[in-house]
Amino acid sequence: MENFNYYIPTKILFGKRKIESLGKEAAKYGKNILMVYGKGSIFKENCYGTSLYEQAKKSLEEANLTIFELPNIDPNPRIESVYAGAKLCREHSIDLVLAIGGGSTIDCAKGIAGQAKYEGDIWKCYETKDPSPIQEVLPIASVLTLSATGSEMNGSSVISNLSCNKKIGLTTSKFRPVFSILDPSYTFTVNRKQTASGSVDIMSHIFEQYFTPDHGGYLQNRMMEGVLKTVIHYAPIALEEPDNYEARANLMWASTWALNDMFEKGKIPTDWATHQMEHELSAFYDITHGVGLGILTPYWMQYVLSNENQHRFVEYGKEVWNLTGTEEEIAKKSIEKTREFFTSLGIPAHLKEVGIGEENLEVMAKQATQRRPLGAMKKLYAEDVLAIFKMAL
Amino acid sequence: MENFNYYIPTKILFGKRKIESLGKEAAKYGKNILMVYGKGSIFKENCYGTSLYEQAKKSLEEANLTIFELPNIDPNPRIESVYAGAKLCREHSIDLVLAIGGGSTIDCAKGIAGQAKYEGDIWKCYETKDPSPIQEVLPIASVLTLSATGSEMNGSSVISNLSCNKKIGLTTSKFRPVFSILDPSYTFTVNRKQTASGSVDIMSHIFEQYFTPDHGGYLQNRMMEGVLKTVIHYAPIALEEPDNYEARANLMWASTWALNDMFEKGKIPTDWATHQMEHELSAFYDITHGVGLGILTPYWMQYVLSNENQHRFVEYGKEVWNLTGTEEEIAKKSIEKTREFFTSLGIPAHLKEVGIGEENLEVMAKQATQRRPLGAMKKLYAEDVLAIFKMAL
Repeated sequence: MENFNYYIPTKILFGKRKIESLGKEAAKYGKNILMVYGKGSIFKENCYGTSLYEQAKKSLEEANLTIFELPNIDPNPRIESVYAGAKLCREHSIDLVLAIGGGSTIDCAKGIAGQAKYEGDIWKCYETKDPSPIQEVLPIASVLTLSATGSEMNGSSVISNLSCNKKIGLTTSKFRPVFSILDPSYTFTVNRKQTASGSVDIMSHIFEQYFTPDHGGYLQNRMMEGVLKTVIHYAPIALEEPDNYEARANLMWASTWALNDMFEKGKIPTDWATHQMEHELSAFYDITHGVGLGILTPYWMQYVLSNENQHRFVEYGKEVWNLTGTEEEIAKKSIEKTREFFTSLGIPAHLKEVGIGEENLEVMAKQATQRRPLGAMKKLYAEDVLAIFKMAL
Repeated sequence: MENFNYYIPTKILFGKRKIESLGKEAAKYGKNILMVYGKGSIFKENCYGTSLYEQAKKSLEEANLTIFELPNIDPNPRIESVYAGAKLCREHSIDLVLAIGGGSTIDCAKGIAGQAKYEGDIWKCYETKDPSPIQEVLPIASVLTLSATGSEMNGSSVISNLSCNKKIGLTTSKFRPVFSILDPSYTFTVNRKQTASGSVDIMSHIFEQYFTPDHGGYLQNRMMEGVLKTVIHYAPIALEEPDNYEARANLMWASTWALNDMFEKGKIPTDWATHQMEHELSAFYDITHGVGLGILTPYWMQYVLSNENQHRFVEYGKEVWNLTGTEEEIAKKSIEKTREFFTSLGIPAHLKEVGIGEENLEVMAKQATQRRPLGAMKKLYAEDVLAIFKMAL
């Protein structure tokens, strides 16, 4: 096991009606709250017979807090929203940036909280993946409405800049929310496509940390298999019964743990090639992140599988899918099982199905690898990424 | 899944030579450090060619900190040590209580940190299991030398009062260490018996949270199976190769997670009957905690197994031991496997082997249940506890 420091001080309030604690928690950070949210689901009637917007507002107002708002955050949040939010923070002396939504909204809130106190252009930090110029970040909190990215408990923020077709992640412990409210009831209304792609996203986060070149991190691998089994068990139930609380609760808590940094501790270097390849797809075609991951992941597995790492796929096949047979058979079958599962959730298996043709494959492959080759299980250069994209067509 | 709040802000510094950060971390809390430690192993030469005592002192002195010392903490730490430590804290305006040792030493440091600022007698809080009178607790930190109790990242402290044959645990978030240094190398010198009983302790912590009456907490159960598999894999390796870093590292990180409160979140009520029964054995006979747990656990399993909860043992048998057969067979076999594994580690299977006869069984059974019946899987009254003790003779 590699040396590491572990420090995850985000407070999680998990369960039914936890929104009622929002005002009290938020008040610990000051008077002025910037509520950041998406395009409307926050206003829909939920299982409590009201809207999340009303619930949040009520709790904040009961705590005598002043609310400012930044609505209309996009699913792949734009750098323009970051600038707009930061402007509001400065104008109104915001004390806490409160995201209400899924990973995109939370990621955007992180960018806002970072830009608010930073005199330079934070996009440069994303572009160089270097958070060090950002000295101070406003406190960030979230009310989660989608089980997928884990942004509610980690320090990562992914922002898109469509003017240059770039979607880039930036990570710093300063971006970790001070608290997050996780009420699985808010995901009852998440539709089939988003539920499926969120579930794929959770599994992909695990794969990126599970499939690593080293032999260490036994405990982390066994725990990650537990997360995979949970998603495999509950994602189909959530699709069939959208308001099954136990299914939604397990998916939500699984999504948080899949990427709150716990599992990568002691296992660095982790892989992340599939995520970086998918970021190119989203940047060029604005497709749903989990769908892109679902298409690419099994092709990535096929491409990187080798004699040297076959044992890792065998472990995966045995522990997660209860596969039997020769080692070679189990390894190959584990990849097939992954694809079959994604397909059962309704995730397409080919880029063409989501409108992506050959036109940009080369430039995307080049852009994905422009800083350095991707991945850790196998180093992927532009030609490798292009080969995977072509397999996925 | 039950509602819960999750907040575990203990910073963990994990790995080789992390002791070098001790002074820097400790200095964040003030100048005066009370070093609390056990009976000598801290002075033995370790794999770094020096002693842990020297390493700790060097790092603290480099940070210009003033060190006070409380040595000779017992394996089942005494309330008298708590009083003595609290006196030192008051006399020397201690800013941080630093435990160097295993769970006993850390538990004692927690008692000291609680008593230091409390005008009443903290033993009364242990006796009533009520931490609410304790308003302020000094910051607590630890350097861990034994993988077992999880005290390094949780808010529990177990203290013994031999004058009344009582060993009682008290839990409050105020007892959670601010930081803990986990260098698995320090456990290379842990002997066979302590390694085995520490491993049983880890597994027992999981069992107490795994075997619960509800059907929820699927994710937590799958992750806990991962911890069990890790201990089952690495405990025998650590016994055969005491300086196998990977084995020691996995056991250490497993011990921390087995009882840092993560797994019980959403699963309350958890069981803890076996622990409370064992506390009676330790209080009356001062036996090693993990040995007592190892003796009792399979008998507890046999006693509580019923048609209503058989499915939980089936789950355990299938996922952890890869058992096959009818449900009834798997459930029974899973208990046999547990006993066999403990035996393979050298843990006795009968109370008589550790010098416990029939003489105090009744009074221990009565004392264990004096406040309320034990357990959640099955409520255990005095006669049930007595029956389990008799099975274990």
